[in-house]
Amino acid sequence: MPKISIKSQNKSFEYTPDKNLLQILLENDVFVDNPCNGKGSCGKCKIKLLEGNLPDIGETEEKLLKKEEIDSGIRLSCFVVPQEDIVIEILQKEGKHDILTTGYTPDFEFDPLIHKEVFKIEKPTLENQGSFEELICKTFDVEKFDWRLLQQHEFITGKVTGVFNGRELIAIECGDTTDILYGVAVDIGTTTVVTALIDMKTGEELATASMINAQKNFGLDVLTRITYEVEHPEDGKEKLQYAIVNSINEMIGDICNKSKVDRKNIYEISIAANCTMMHLLLGIDATSIGMSPYSPIFTKSKNILAKDIGLKAAPGARLYCLPSVSAYIGADIVAGAYVCQLHKAKENVLFIDIGTNGEIVLSNHGKLLSCSCAAGPALEGMNISSGMRAAEGAIEDVRITESGVEVQVIGDKRPIGICGSGILAVVKELLRTELVKKDGAFIKKEKLEESDYRYDMIQLDGRKRQFILESSPDQILITQGDIRQVQLAKGAILSGFYALLRKANIDMDNLDKVIVAGQFGAHLSADSLVGIGILPEKVEDKLVYVGNSSKTGAYMALMSANVKEEIEQLAHQIDYMELGASEGYEKLFAACLIFPG
Amino acid sequence: MPKISIKSQNKSFEYTPDKNLLQILLENDVFVDNPCNGKGSCGKCKIKLLEGNLPDIGETEEKLLKKEEIDSGIRLSCFVVPQEDIVIEILQKEGKHDILTTGYTPDFEFDPLIHKEVFKIEKPTLENQGSFEELICKTFDVEKFDWRLLQQHEFITGKVTGVFNGRELIAIECGDTTDILYGVAVDIGTTTVVTALIDMKTGEELATASMINAQKNFGLDVLTRITYEVEHPEDGKEKLQYAIVNSINEMIGDICNKSKVDRKNIYEISIAANCTMMHLLLGIDATSIGMSPYSPIFTKSKNILAKDIGLKAAPGARLYCLPSVSAYIGADIVAGAYVCQLHKAKENVLFIDIGTNGEIVLSNHGKLLSCSCAAGPALEGMNISSGMRAAEGAIEDVRITESGVEVQVIGDKRPIGICGSGILAVVKELLRTELVKKDGAFIKKEKLEESDYRYDMIQLDGRKRQFILESSPDQILITQGDIRQVQLAKGAILSGFYALLRKANIDMDNLDKVIVAGQFGAHLSADSLVGIGILPEKVEDKLVYVGNSSKTGAYMALMSANVKEEIEQLAHQIDYMELGASEGYEKLFAACLIFPG
Repeated sequence: MPKISIKSQNKSFEYTPDKNLLQILLENDVFVDNPCNGKGSCGKCKIKLLEGNLPDIGETEEKLLKKEEIDSGIRLSCFVVPQEDIVIEILQKEGKHDILTTGYTPDFEFDPLIHKEVFKIEKPTLENQGSFEELICKTFDVEKFDWRLLQQHEFITGKVTGVFNGRELIAIECGDTTDILYGVAVDIGTTTVVTALIDMKTGEELATASMINAQKNFGLDVLTRITYEVEHPEDGKEKLQYAIVNSINEMIGDICNKSKVDRKNIYEISIAANCTMMHLLLGIDATSIGMSPYSPIFTKSKNILAKDIGLKAAPGARLYCLPSVSAYIGADIVAGAYVCQLHKAKENVLFIDIGTNGEIVLSNHGKLLSCSCAAGPALEGMNISSGMRAAEGAIEDVRITESGVEVQVIGDKRPIGICGSGILAVVKELLRTELVKKDGAFIKKEKLEESDYRYDMIQLDGRKRQFILESSPDQILITQGDIRQVQLAKGAILSGFYALLRKANIDMDNLDKVIVAGQFGAHLSADSLVGIGILPEKVEDKLVYVGNSSKTGAYMALMSANVKEEIEQLAHQIDYMELGASEGYEKLFAACLIFPG
Repeated sequence: MPKISIKSQNKSFEYTPDKNLLQILLENDVFVDNPCNGKGSCGKCKIKLLEGNLPDIGETEEKLLKKEEIDSGIRLSCFVVPQEDIVIEILQKEGKHDILTTGYTPDFEFDPLIHKEVFKIEKPTLENQGSFEELICKTFDVEKFDWRLLQQHEFITGKVTGVFNGRELIAIECGDTTDILYGVAVDIGTTTVVTALIDMKTGEELATASMINAQKNFGLDVLTRITYEVEHPEDGKEKLQYAIVNSINEMIGDICNKSKVDRKNIYEISIAANCTMMHLLLGIDATSIGMSPYSPIFTKSKNILAKDIGLKAAPGARLYCLPSVSAYIGADIVAGAYVCQLHKAKENVLFIDIGTNGEIVLSNHGKLLSCSCAAGPALEGMNISSGMRAAEGAIEDVRITESGVEVQVIGDKRPIGICGSGILAVVKELLRTELVKKDGAFIKKEKLEESDYRYDMIQLDGRKRQFILESSPDQILITQGDIRQVQLAKGAILSGFYALLRKANIDMDNLDKVIVAGQFGAHLSADSLVGIGILPEKVEDKLVYVGNSSKTGAYMALMSANVKEEIEQLAHQIDYMELGASEGYEKLFAACLIFPG
């Protein structure tokens, strides 16, 4: 079999010459960015050929690359089906990502569903030979329990500690182990996963770990992952499940090491995630989420054996999955709504989590209505010509001043692309400085004085204008297409925002608070949000940021049986409005496409 | 690594030279008889060296072999730790075993716990996006179900068939599949396993398969398998479980093939087995069964997911394990007691299953008392110098007449050993012809006329006498030690028999019926049983044989929810008497050692 070697990563592996290079690389765990999921449209999966030969370049691939790139041996890996030994270089390196692990937590009482109690199991005798199972039922005063508990035990007697999930016995330990009780709270985002180790005796967060969701290899967003599942009926679901389960197992290993805690003493893993991630976590088909009428397989909370999906913790450890509302209002949003106590709000509060989907929950004095807006990945830096995720080297803020363009780069590195907050910032600045008009079109450069430094920054690419944000060493462009992507995203979110208010009969003046949640939202300044009209101007001084409320909700559910109950009730209280099916939505959406100005 | 080749089996494999040859052979699935489980005491695990060298013979091994055997290259594989390439011959070939798969079945009504119903799942709409889980609960009118059912499904709508285990939904199938409903009944014996495919619509037995319990490689009886588990804490339990689960899976494949049934349409597997086999089947520690006070981990019935122990059938298929009474009155005996309706007996009925353990249940007009007698493996042909299991070449019946000794051999082959029923027959004949006295000792040959053909058949081996049953080509001996083994076994069973009667205050004249159950019992003639005093003479005309009532019980439980309930009640109704702890037992045992005559 021919061999691929990756320079700089000291990696090489054999391959069967019937797949494209992107597939081969991803299957061998080599990260290559591919926002379009290998569909041949994003032009991001560049690699450089160093040794050996690749088949000739085709028409579509040629269009997506610059001539200089082609001359230097750069190819798009999704187009190339290699046949022989090659040595390549991966061009996009995966930088250190900035992942939000903290946020606001309201006061609440600790009363974990998981708890321990000490008992004494009497020794059987020849006259009284009762089975271990009978002794357990008698000693722990339970009628029955999962038979698999019996698989974990020799016949132990004497002082033991029972571990209970509510009134259900889930483990028995020798001696008194009541001092040892750990749990894990997890937020699975489509892009990032955050895991926290919790001492359930004190509620203290001992350590956190975070990483990029390993399912990225199967698609960057929810829909491409569902497509992957559909296109790989033989093992797609299993691979996606394995990727996330394995990631969580690794992170648990990591936080246990940091805190010197034995993972055998983790008794519950509490997880918040969007509805698709929850399906993929449990190995449940997510196909129906991807097509109308968007009905998921399940939304209810789950309290199951963690090992049933391969999570490694105490043998009887539970996995608690928070409930969702619908396919596009997931447990992450329910968690956030709970953390913000939307159901108990005494005013009109709007909760928004901005990402590839913008999820909005409106609380009208506790009456809850939600919607989800298909913003697309532009706001996260995807499907943008120079876009990248918020990692080292990404431009995260931009200021266009009289004298020049100032950029702020994550990690203070040489800029190699622009992430979501940077895109928003630059569009906001282009609008503020009137280089882009309210309808989203670039002005003609002729409208500027030739002496204006920005005169040269506006260029024509064919018939379309673009803005050169950085020209060397790497050119970082904002194209007319990029502006359109942002425009579609902002139109989607803003129209959802207004549709909810309209449905609830609340006008802007009566909206008391706007809560911005989530990984991505935390990096969006009020300035940008309002500046490009993702949110209306009037909310600027009503904005509150709550950070990763999804993880916080998982943490609270872990630490309190009462919170679990309340969250489950809350999920039922949130009404869901399908925007596409609501009256007059298309007109509203069109109006919301206009930038403020 | 050095290599072992097995002549005549065309098998060869590499090995690491740190284990004894018996271990290596068993690990590579080469059957070598080893009743003592490799302890170096039975002298049965003979192999013949054809090429290569083995380490020198030691003192113990030398004692267990004859000089001629040593000279011809025969060794005991448990003593030998090979170091180089060798070619060997396996001496004991595994013949075709005669396994009993049938028996008496009482009339009963079919009402299987597993059943099917047709429903219609409504299509969700944009206005009514209910999850599949919610639709299922509504459509099938269930409150909840095992979440793993969701793993098996895409979002299906329209006509579907629900498979129920009682009121629990366990599977959903597209369309109307109510005509297809299969189940499997299994009897796991320590020695043999019998599996039957049942059409649950009609109760018809479509096919049966049987095989030697693959756990034989880990020990021939219950105690040696427990010892194996104890001595291999890292994976002993898993290996024993895998062996039996794999055997059942193979047999299910076999009977499905024979009947052209898809194993995906098997919805329940109903299993009867002794308590140790049931523990090993479920991967539950059996150690405590092996030591006083003989308390097992569990005795209750189990109705669990078949795939949780690796059984391959319908995805949601159930495994039903019949209940045991105690460590030594297992589900096989409960099944038999149920099949014989002991709890409804209108007279005094004694049920006995004779094997390595003799289990007895006495019904005093429906009041049930049981005990278990450690008979040892002699009655099954083990621990007997020329003993073997009931396979081709085994002497199964013997008659000593005036003119000579007549033997009956299984498969009409050249005799190579003697099985349980043969042992009993020969001992009975030795007693009848007064070659062996009531105390079990051989008579001195001098007591016979020199002209008597039997004069030469009694020989001295050192200081002990023995009887030469066959002299050529293979010598088949009955030694004084063999007689002692039979004597111990018969003493154990007879004393259990009397102890039960005594406890229930029933005398022999008031005992109305004696039911002989089980694989082995079916081959024991009333003649032999009474002739050597395993049972008292007075029962001879009260004997009834019911065959494999363990499998029949599993079948009945499969076919009826009511039977399941009644069997579970029955298990509670059977009192267990621990013989070792009962008053005056040792004296009774001593008295029962005496042979009749």
